[in-house]
Amino acid sequence: MGSRRNLSLRLRCFIMDERLKKQLEFSLEIDKEKNIFRQTHLSGHGRNENDAEHAWHMAIMAYLLREYANEKVDIAKVMLMCLIHDIVEIDAGDTYAYDTEALKTQKTREDAAKERIFSLLPEDQKAELISLFDEFEENRSPESKYAHAMDNLQPLILNNSNGGGDWREHGVTARTVYGRQEKTRLGSEKLYEVTDQIIQDNIKKGNLPE
Amino acid sequence: MGSRRNLSLRLRCFIMDERLKKQLEFSLEIDKEKNIFRQTHLSGHGRNENDAEHAWHMAIMAYLLREYANEKVDIAKVMLMCLIHDIVEIDAGDTYAYDTEALKTQKTREDAAKERIFSLLPEDQKAELISLFDEFEENRSPESKYAHAMDNLQPLILNNSNGGGDWREHGVTARTVYGRQEKTRLGSEKLYEVTDQIIQDNIKKGNLPE
Repeated sequence: MGSRRNLSLRLRCFIMDERLKKQLEFSLEIDKEKNIFRQTHLSGHGRNENDAEHAWHMAIMAYLLREYANEKVDIAKVMLMCLIHDIVEIDAGDTYAYDTEALKTQKTREDAAKERIFSLLPEDQKAELISLFDEFEENRSPESKYAHAMDNLQPLILNNSNGGGDWREHGVTARTVYGRQEKTRLGSEKLYEVTDQIIQDNIKKGNLPE
Repeated sequence: MGSRRNLSLRLRCFIMDERLKKQLEFSLEIDKEKNIFRQTHLSGHGRNENDAEHAWHMAIMAYLLREYANEKVDIAKVMLMCLIHDIVEIDAGDTYAYDTEALKTQKTREDAAKERIFSLLPEDQKAELISLFDEFEENRSPESKYAHAMDNLQPLILNNSNGGGDWREHGVTARTVYGRQEKTRLGSEKLYEVTDQIIQDNIKKGNLPE
C-alpha cells in the first residue's frame, strides 16, 4: 500500500487529467496480481504459477484455439476476460478449485475485492470491467463459456506435463476433476474430448485415483 | 526440454488431430516465458518481473489506455502483439534496454528463437504470429507504435513507484532513458507527456542523473 500511495501522491502533482491518473493508478494496483500464487506448478516441475502468468497463458491459448469454440466468439472480449478474470484475487486470494471450505466464502470475498479494485478506474471503465468480470462468472455467454474452457485447460496441460503432481499433492480424485473439467464442454466440445483423454491417461498411469 | 518431450510423446498417443497437437505443444512451450526475468522490479520493491507478467500487464494497459493512441488501432491485434512480443526470449533471453553490448547480438539471437518456437505451431498460425511479431519489431503500423508505448510505459510506472531503483542499479542517465522513452510519442503523444513528467520528476528527486 505504501508504494501505491507514493505513486498516487506523485501522480497527483503532475498529472492534471483526473481520468488518466485513475487509469494509471489502477494499472499500478493490478501489478499485485503477480504475487497471488496458485496451486498449479509451472512445467518442468517448476515453482507455483501466479495469477498474472495464468491469465497471460489463457489469453494466448484462447486466441490460438478459438476455432474450437462451440459458438462464434468475439475474441478480443474473450482475451480481455481471460486477462482480468482473477484481478479480485489481489484482495480475496486464490481459491483452489478443489478446496470445498474456501469455496463457501469465495463469492463474498471476491465481491468486496471487485468493488474496491475496479473503483480505482474512471466510472465508465469500472462499469465495463465489472460487467465483463460478472459475465465470466455467470458462465452463460459464448465468450464466458469458452474463457472457462481455457481456465480449465491451461492448468490441465501444465499438470499433465508434470505427471499430475498437483492432483497428487491435494489428494484429488478423478470424479472431482471431472466435476470441474466437464464445464469445458460448454465452451468447446472438441477441447473437452482432449481433456477427457488427458484425464483418462492420468488415471491409467496412476496419477489420479478414480 | 525433458518435460516437453514427455508431453509431446503423451499427446501423440491420444490426440489424433495433428493440428490440435501442435497447438497444444506450442501452448506448453510458451510456459517457459514465465522463467525469463527482466531488470524491472515489481511495485512495492518486489522481485524482478518476468516476461509473461510484463506481457499480461501491457495487454491490459493497452486496452484501458487505447483512447490515447495517436491513430485508431485494432485493439485485439494490439493485445495479441503485447502478449506474444517477448516469446523469442525463451531462447534468446531478456536484453536490457540499456545494455549496449547485448543489444548488438539481440536480432540474431531472436531470429533463431522465432523460427524454432513458432515452428511448433501449424503453418498458418506460425506465419500469422511471425508476421505479428515482425510488425511489432518494425514499429511502423499504428498498432505496433502503440504497443511499443505500452512496452515503455509499463516498466516506467513500476520503476517510478520504486523510486527509480532500476535506473540507479544500472547507472542509467536521463539521456539514455529519453532515447528509449521518446518512442512512446510515436504511439501516443498524450502518454508521452506523462512519461516526460515522470522522468523530469525523477531527475528532480535525484533518482536519475541528467
